[in-house]
Amino acid sequence: MKVGILGGGQLGRMLLQAAANYTVETFVLERDNNCPAAHLCHHFVQGDITDYNTVYQFGKQVDALTIEIEAVNVAALEQLEAEGVQIYPSPNAIKTIKNKIIQKEFYRQHQIPTAPFVITNILNEVFQHTHFLPAVHKIGEGGYDGRGVQIIRNEKEIEQGFNDPAVLEKMITIDKEIAIIVARNQHGETAVYPPAEMIFDQVLNILEYQITPARINRDLLWKAEAIAIKVVQELNSAGLFAIEFLIDKQQEIWVNETAPRVHNSGHHTIEASYCSQYDMLWRIILGYPLGNTKLICPSAMINILGEPGYNGTPIYQGLQDTLKTEQAFVHLYGKHSTKPGRKMGHVTLLAKEEGELIYQAHKIKQKLKVIA
Amino acid sequence: MKVGILGGGQLGRMLLQAAANYTVETFVLERDNNCPAAHLCHHFVQGDITDYNTVYQFGKQVDALTIEIEAVNVAALEQLEAEGVQIYPSPNAIKTIKNKIIQKEFYRQHQIPTAPFVITNILNEVFQHTHFLPAVHKIGEGGYDGRGVQIIRNEKEIEQGFNDPAVLEKMITIDKEIAIIVARNQHGETAVYPPAEMIFDQVLNILEYQITPARINRDLLWKAEAIAIKVVQELNSAGLFAIEFLIDKQQEIWVNETAPRVHNSGHHTIEASYCSQYDMLWRIILGYPLGNTKLICPSAMINILGEPGYNGTPIYQGLQDTLKTEQAFVHLYGKHSTKPGRKMGHVTLLAKEEGELIYQAHKIKQKLKVIA
Repeated sequence: MKVGILGGGQLGRMLLQAAANYTVETFVLERDNNCPAAHLCHHFVQGDITDYNTVYQFGKQVDALTIEIEAVNVAALEQLEAEGVQIYPSPNAIKTIKNKIIQKEFYRQHQIPTAPFVITNILNEVFQHTHFLPAVHKIGEGGYDGRGVQIIRNEKEIEQGFNDPAVLEKMITIDKEIAIIVARNQHGETAVYPPAEMIFDQVLNILEYQITPARINRDLLWKAEAIAIKVVQELNSAGLFAIEFLIDKQQEIWVNETAPRVHNSGHHTIEASYCSQYDMLWRIILGYPLGNTKLICPSAMINILGEPGYNGTPIYQGLQDTLKTEQAFVHLYGKHSTKPGRKMGHVTLLAKEEGELIYQAHKIKQKLKVIA
Repeated sequence: MKVGILGGGQLGRMLLQAAANYTVETFVLERDNNCPAAHLCHHFVQGDITDYNTVYQFGKQVDALTIEIEAVNVAALEQLEAEGVQIYPSPNAIKTIKNKIIQKEFYRQHQIPTAPFVITNILNEVFQHTHFLPAVHKIGEGGYDGRGVQIIRNEKEIEQGFNDPAVLEKMITIDKEIAIIVARNQHGETAVYPPAEMIFDQVLNILEYQITPARINRDLLWKAEAIAIKVVQELNSAGLFAIEFLIDKQQEIWVNETAPRVHNSGHHTIEASYCSQYDMLWRIILGYPLGNTKLICPSAMINILGEPGYNGTPIYQGLQDTLKTEQAFVHLYGKHSTKPGRKMGHVTLLAKEEGELIYQAHKIKQKLKVIA
């Protein structure tokens, strides 16, 4: 089977590492021919994943397509789907998710709990909704990894918002953030991973580390799982999905957003789960049975981010020390240059004790720095 | 760092899957451009790994070289080593091991216990050693995966032996076969993996399945570990080594043979160990600390072999069923054609209970067949 991936970043890289456990012929489309996934596929095609013709021509060579980023040309995918190429997730699901306005309306339409919101088309409209503040302003299209999201605490901060179509969302007083990965195959069967609990860096608004399983009570777990499955069933698409939740101080649970692809919150599944998220997506694409989502061992996952103030060829300070950590698994993405906050790699830790996981995660966070 | 691999089979494939956790630039030299490793490296070079000039030119592009098969041009490696290319293992270690006569003499010279043997240059010489029978006749160079090994039970069977330089080795009445993987870095530090216990198919003389850790008592374990380390220290080479042992009915332990590379007996380390054998070799090559050889969980590993009577494009009968096994990890090597006994993939099982491992291994063995 010939399968193409739109995008060649670290998610593509790990997808291709997993692909080599099967007999699939792999294609990657990406503008940067030095990208993390470029050398791990059978056929690398240099090109723009947002361009209709490029995506269409790329897709015509393969039996199935998947994505590692939502910012792709959906019209080309719709045409390819109409011509019989299998797309994971469906172009319709990508369309629903890639625009945060449509995504939020999808939740509302299906009674999926999500923070109250209004839509603002230009920045000035935010002034009509000051009763919503403090709020989070999220740009409709083009946000990624914390970009395109702006906190607006009071009227004075409104000017920091977006002058493009955006969602203005009531700020939830967050107690915890969790993510649940759900796999869905062509027959509508689903498999659900245990939730990961995410701890964010307040400055860069990017994941600092996470631990799995999340420390939540059983009632909340069941509710979160039920909602996660509902999101995926309503999207009505085969593929792999990560549903991010906010849990507020009153222990109410709200869907924050959904990613219709392998996801940062599932990196740990490579070592901590019987079937990794990457393996799972291949199983779905290749028509194999869904895999076992159970944990082999509790885990922590630390993103290795470019240090503020450094741009250029990366130097991994503290790597030797990190590699000495007995239960650590190091993944470097092989990116040719670092910049502040850029995802350069990750470390997964396995340990039965939660305290040990947190202690080791902090240690790695302190010693491993990407400078230039 | 630029690193080349001589050979592009399944061992190279798994090495490259592991390489993508680091920032190494990879090269593969192999005659078959459809080989399992061809598409997973940065630079694939089509060529003969036994040819001096081909290996030399290939090696001149890289900082370090490793092998996934011993049948390589050692003279070229010696020249490259003299010119400053790092070779894992050292050409001298490959020379010692690739010829079974030299390998056996190496064991004798260093008082490493190995089955009594004589050297025969032509078949007729076997008749001078009939007191050695029953014996195993092993061809000096060119054997692989059970080829080049002939059992000679009595004088009548002598004619089945080799008319080339060979080792005639007293047959050990085998109680168990185990293998121990030892890693050694540039500083002479070693790391030892728990032993795997191997169960052989008596017909094809090829591994049927193995379980780890081996079911041996502590005294035998310590002895085996000490011998394994001695073998590697006497070879005096950095790299990764698999030492195969025979344990006889009297519980005496004998080195059967050594492989100076990642090895079939270490496949399970991908999922069952904190640091896989493939990861470990990269750590050695890249100058990183040795990894953690401890088991995350006991495991079984089943080779998926081409069924007798089938040649051609492989069909993996029973694959869907195997993929449903909850604690199974399936690895297919993506070989374009199958033949009887050819290694087409493997399955690793994780389970705490030995009985469960054996039960599941037998089940997979029965249901998963590669036909054409």
